Amino acid sequence: MDIGSIIAKKRIAGPKGELNKDEIKYFVGKWVKGEIKDSQAAALMSYIYMNGLTEDEIIRFVIEVGNSGDVLDLNQISDNIVDKHSTGGVGDKVTLILLPVIAALGLPVAKISSRGLGISGGTIDKLASIPGFKSNISIQEFQDNVQNIGISIVSQDLNLAPAENKFYKLRNEISCRDSIVLIAISLMSLKIATGSNKIVFDLSCGKGTYLDSKEDARRLGKLLVRIGKALNKQVGYIITLMDEPVGNCVGNILEIQETIKALNGDMSKDVEDTVVSLASIVLNLAYGEKDLTLNAAKVLNVIHSGQALTKFKQMVIAQRW
Amino acid sequence: MDIGSIIAKKRIAGPKGELNKDEIKYFVGKWVKGEIKDSQAAALMSYIYMNGLTEDEIIRFVIEVGNSGDVLDLNQISDNIVDKHSTGGVGDKVTLILLPVIAALGLPVAKISSRGLGISGGTIDKLASIPGFKSNISIQEFQDNVQNIGISIVSQDLNLAPAENKFYKLRNEISCRDSIVLIAISLMSLKIATGSNKIVFDLSCGKGTYLDSKEDARRLGKLLVRIGKALNKQVGYIITLMDEPVGNCVGNILEIQETIKALNGDMSKDVEDTVVSLASIVLNLAYGEKDLTLNAAKVLNVIHSGQALTKFKQMVIAQRW
Repeated sequence: MDIGSIIAKKRIAGPKGELNKDEIKYFVGKWVKGEIKDSQAAALMSYIYMNGLTEDEIIRFVIEVGNSGDVLDLNQISDNIVDKHSTGGVGDKVTLILLPVIAALGLPVAKISSRGLGISGGTIDKLASIPGFKSNISIQEFQDNVQNIGISIVSQDLNLAPAENKFYKLRNEISCRDSIVLIAISLMSLKIATGSNKIVFDLSCGKGTYLDSKEDARRLGKLLVRIGKALNKQVGYIITLMDEPVGNCVGNILEIQETIKALNGDMSKDVEDTVVSLASIVLNLAYGEKDLTLNAAKVLNVIHSGQALTKFKQMVIAQRW
Repeated sequence: MDIGSIIAKKRIAGPKGELNKDEIKYFVGKWVKGEIKDSQAAALMSYIYMNGLTEDEIIRFVIEVGNSGDVLDLNQISDNIVDKHSTGGVGDKVTLILLPVIAALGLPVAKISSRGLGISGGTIDKLASIPGFKSNISIQEFQDNVQNIGISIVSQDLNLAPAENKFYKLRNEISCRDSIVLIAISLMSLKIATGSNKIVFDLSCGKGTYLDSKEDARRLGKLLVRIGKALNKQVGYIITLMDEPVGNCVGNILEIQETIKALNGDMSKDVEDTVVSLASIVLNLAYGEKDLTLNAAKVLNVIHSGQALTKFKQMVIAQRW
């Protein structure tokens, strides 16, 4: 097996171009080790962009990318390990508000976030604007915090799905940001690495995001659910139209301030709607609770009682230098 | 203008994906300067492989790649500056035999050769097996040797068409070796840089070469002639079926020994046929002499009289440390 023939194979449209498990394993493994060049990965990715991937290929990629580094096993902490992921956009602070809410609802949150890339702000950059916040704690600390506090957010500097980081950067470099299959591989592989199994996605579409249209977002959402099923993970999603920034502020420190205000119960309508929808889906995934009014009441309760803010504070304190 | 949008444009099949002069100039210029990554060039090349290039795009690439470094002006030496180029294959020593023959026929030869890559042996590697032979002389020495001796062969370490070198390596890395348009761009851009205007190509096809079939070789040959016309250069070609190595030997020093034997008049039938055909085409391009019997007689005469061997010796002596 060699990368040249894998590239040439994927250049073929249709069933003859389908990469098998061994080929995908070979590519991901060697690329992470630096034994395959970025130029070669770029060629492969370009042909994937043009010819697409079958659902089997997608799942193979998710598994190999997800297992390309350390893999957390959080099973002993809870049956429900929650993750929320936004495809991002300008001024998107929903993650920062939602996760403490989820933790306050009694569901452990284990979250890897990234720095900003291209037009999308990164949750890690926002957290880094809190003086002394440390996003590159060890895997042990991460696991301990999830267990003890019920929430931890770390950057991808850890060796969790290192191949995903490479995919993400390359996608950006070679104009493949908007590839639904590549986005899905990135998103789901991280969930393998962190061991989360109740996952909700906030798929933003419109201006200031990577997904052009609602159709694209819906295609992506459905694909994520199907990949989740294949991996024994429950996945939900909402689609957010984001032609303008969510909430009131854009800018790392400003968004942290807005987060704290929101966790104090003072948030704009669009942020509240998004947070309540996402948290309701998580309650549904974790407890099978489908009554949205009931779920919404629970969510607002942990905010107005201050429990969510407490979780946010605990997380920050646990991750300070 | 940015590389991302150029990549995305070339991903579009048909007229909407046609790159204009400015886009091609931007890409080639920035890539040579290291301001565009190899991964980005790889993506662009992959889409070129799939979607092809129009003849206008090909000529734009040839011009930009050809002018990406130093450009020789050999006009004052002669109206005819000859180059011979083989698409290469295992054990191909025809270049080494032919060029002294051409020089002995009174036509100046200015030749850039490469080292071996992939399966094809490189003329520079073969010359390097001569103790003390120096293939990286300066441009001034190169020009002087062409003027005084009538022949010089240098490696691409000189700053002649540096973008071609990058194209060549990348093509090899990402399984685009067999792209007719990319081969044509590589071949013709070098001729711009060295200022040759009577060019004969030996297009080898079959096993041990980069061109699968005679049809591919013919397509390439016709394209080279058309590019030549657009650039005011006269181009000829022969197609060599090379299912087995030409001549008797494979290996750098062995091929040099075979070259010297051949220039002493002792050569295998296949080598002689190829040398005579190519030299006859050159005589035709330079002097308009179409009588192949007459041309063949002239060629055999400079071999049997020892004049071709003398040119080879003069070249080696001029380029020794």
